[in-house]
Amino acid sequence: MHIHHINFVVEDLDEAIGRFERILGKPVDRRDSLPGRGALTAGFKLGRAWFVLVQPIDPEGVPGRHLAEHGEGFFLCSFGVDDLDQTSSRLRQAGVGLAGPPRQGLDNWRVQDLDPEYSLGEQFQITEEVENGD
Amino acid sequence: MHIHHINFVVEDLDEAIGRFERILGKPVDRRDSLPGRGALTAGFKLGRAWFVLVQPIDPEGVPGRHLAEHGEGFFLCSFGVDDLDQTSSRLRQAGVGLAGPPRQGLDNWRVQDLDPEYSLGEQFQITEEVENGD
Repeated sequence: MHIHHINFVVEDLDEAIGRFERILGKPVDRRDSLPGRGALTAGFKLGRAWFVLVQPIDPEGVPGRHLAEHGEGFFLCSFGVDDLDQTSSRLRQAGVGLAGPPRQGLDNWRVQDLDPEYSLGEQFQITEEVENGD
Repeated sequence: MHIHHINFVVEDLDEAIGRFERILGKPVDRRDSLPGRGALTAGFKLGRAWFVLVQPIDPEGVPGRHLAEHGEGFFLCSFGVDDLDQTSSRLRQAGVGLAGPPRQGLDNWRVQDLDPEYSLGEQFQITEEVENGD
């Protein structure tokens, strides 16, 4: 496993992009919309990992509820895996709770959330980059 | 820059190590003591990055105060740089606030905290791995 992406919820995406462009010393690499999560996102590629800013546009989406409850800041950390289903099976066998079925993330990312009760109350997940994804 | 390490504060290091050994599917790579921060740590190497669990042993240390205020969870994200002083100068010129002087982290890590007011209220920092460090 490696760190595939780490997401931070922000109130104002443009403003946050400016701050992290200054911190990271490079322009943002991509901007996307995640209608299923009710959010706009912006990603900086840092080595193999993505550093992602998430602005909720739907207060009832998961990122929107997170922002309302916790304010701006850390939202989730995703570990990259080669085979999501195989790793999900291993996790179940190891007693690690999974949360819901696999779902589509950004781009060709297929993600499986872990049960936050198992992991410090924070959102952890695993991501597979699916070949031939759209 | 790349993601050098990401730290999570925990109440019970051994218990948390067990959980993340099951999640990550590998044994913890290193355990250390950080007397200057009043904490014990455990690190998993994930690609180029370290995933670090931090158990405060001094309630007045920075990790200890974080645990008391926020409970278990995300504590800090550090970006790896080749030259800490050069990057600190660039950050200052770009208007990014720094917090305090550079300090010694784990091992040969030399770290510079950023002003949390500048970055979502979360702790961000930069890390240089110093050659010939001890």
